[in-house]
Order: sequence, then structure tokens, then C-alpha cells
Amino acid sequence: MEIVFLWPGKTKNQYLKALQQAYLDKLKKFGRARIVETAEAKGLGEKWVELILEKEAQGLEKYLEDGYIICLSDKGKEMSSEELARLIETRAGASTRKLIFLAGGFLGLSPRIMEKADLKLSLSRMTFSHELARLVILEQVYRALNLIKGYSYPK
Amino acid sequence: MEIVFLWPGKTKNQYLKALQQAYLDKLKKFGRARIVETAEAKGLGEKWVELILEKEAQGLEKYLEDGYIICLSDKGKEMSSEELARLIETRAGASTRKLIFLAGGFLGLSPRIMEKADLKLSLSRMTFSHELARLVILEQVYRALNLIKGYSYPK
Repeated sequence: MEIVFLWPGKTKNQYLKALQQAYLDKLKKFGRARIVETAEAKGLGEKWVELILEKEAQGLEKYLEDGYIICLSDKGKEMSSEELARLIETRAGASTRKLIFLAGGFLGLSPRIMEKADLKLSLSRMTFSHELARLVILEQVYRALNLIKGYSYPK
Repeated sequence: MEIVFLWPGKTKNQYLKALQQAYLDKLKKFGRARIVETAEAKGLGEKWVELILEKEAQGLEKYLEDGYIICLSDKGKEMSSEELARLIETRAGASTRKLIFLAGGFLGLSPRIMEKADLKLSLSRMTFSHELARLVILEQVYRALNLIKGYSYPK
């Protein structure tokens, strides 16, 4: 099973970007994993939110075929790290080819994309910045893979 | 009101350290804020957990007098960003001199320190690494201060 972290737009904060890459590198020791950053809608003011989300949806959707899609959403289900680990284990056992963790951009995700989610996952009752949320999900998947293997907990 | 982020041991990951400092700098535009890193128990294996936590407790407790103490704990109360903002606003209104966000080290916090908490706060049902949790609470307090001032949401 390949694990894909998918979102529109490159992470701009260089420290968060470096941390995301560091977790991706660690994840690769467990199997195939990659980050896919699709095109971000540029040059439009925030009032064009629907247009921005639709443009970004077009970039995202070509990566969504053929995978089990977990969308980060503040309206999603909260899970513990252990529950996430069990979910990943179950998907691997169900012969899922591609497990996709989809995170929104600055303005979130188009409802049209959100509807494709097999599961909506909330990281916290708190709202995280979209770039921080990307780091958190990478750290959680890394933690989950360690839990599945029975390795000692990365604190 | 001064806001203090308190924990044992310096943050080792240099990117997380830089991000913590960046949020602290932004926080200072709202008022007094600082990070206090107390002594970490060194040179002891993990089996000496009680001794480690007691040594660290001795470093922490001198900063705990005279403040309202919010301990990060996975057994704490989950709050939304808006609820955290209201809590901070209430403490400022109640003439709290020092609002302390206390985060544990690699092995957590001594029960003796945990008992001093006025509030136990859980950031998520998921378990974060202790260094990531420190970044998340800094980001959340920054977000809360923006919410209190009615500034547009930092996404």
C-alpha cells in the first residue's frame, strides 16, 4: 500500500516544510509514501473562495482515483493515535492500493472534493493552521506505523 | 497578564525550536510572553522514570507560584480554539498575573506537578510528540489572542 499526502499548494513556511520532509523520509522506511502538492489557485482575492476551491479541486481530483480517501476536516471524526493505527492496518489488510490523506489549502477544500472522502478525520477540536495540520498528520501516520510494528513510541 | 510557556529541557529539534520562537515573537506583539525551559534530568535511563520526573519537578515548581496553571495532558479537557480564547480572556479579566502553559518532557510530568494544575488541557485525542505539542500550544495561544482582538483568522 502506498501512502499519499495530498494538498493544494506548496508549504510556504520553510521550517514546516523541512519537518514535513523529515517525517516523509522516516515514513519511507516503512514502505512507499509521498507528498503530492497540486496547483494552488493564485492571483485571486479571498472573496473568490468558490472559484479558488474549484480550481484547486481540478488539480486534486486526478490523484483521487483508485484510493481510500481520508480528508482532514474540522467536522470529521476524532480518533486516538491507536485508532488511526488500526485504521491504517485495516486498509493495508483490505488490499487498498493507495491510502490518501487529503488536506485543504488556505481556504479549505471544495465540497465536491470533500464528498469523495471515505472518511473525514478531525485532528483536534482546535483549529490548526493548514500548514501545521499537514505536519501533524505526517507525524501521526509515522506514529501509527510505529505502533503497528510494535516499535517503542516516538515521544 | 504575562503568558509563560514552561517545560523541562530545551527543544532539540531545530526546526521546531525555530517555529516556537517565531510564534513567541508574534505573541509578544500582544503583551508579555516568554518560554521558560527548566533543567532536564540527564544521564538516567528511562527505567528511572520517577526519579527523572522528580528532578524535573524541582526545576519546574519555582516557576509555578503565583500563576494560573494550565497543564497539557492527554487526560485533560479538550477545547476548541474559541473556548481557549474565552478562557484566556476570562483569566485576563480576573487579574491573573501569570498564565502558565506547562508542557511535559519526554516522559511527561510528575503527578506532584500535575496536581498543581488549575486546568488540564488536552490538545487532541491523538498523542503528539512532546516537542510538537509545545509548538501546537504556542500556535493555539497566538490564534486565541487574534480571536480575542477580532483579527482575521491566521490560517
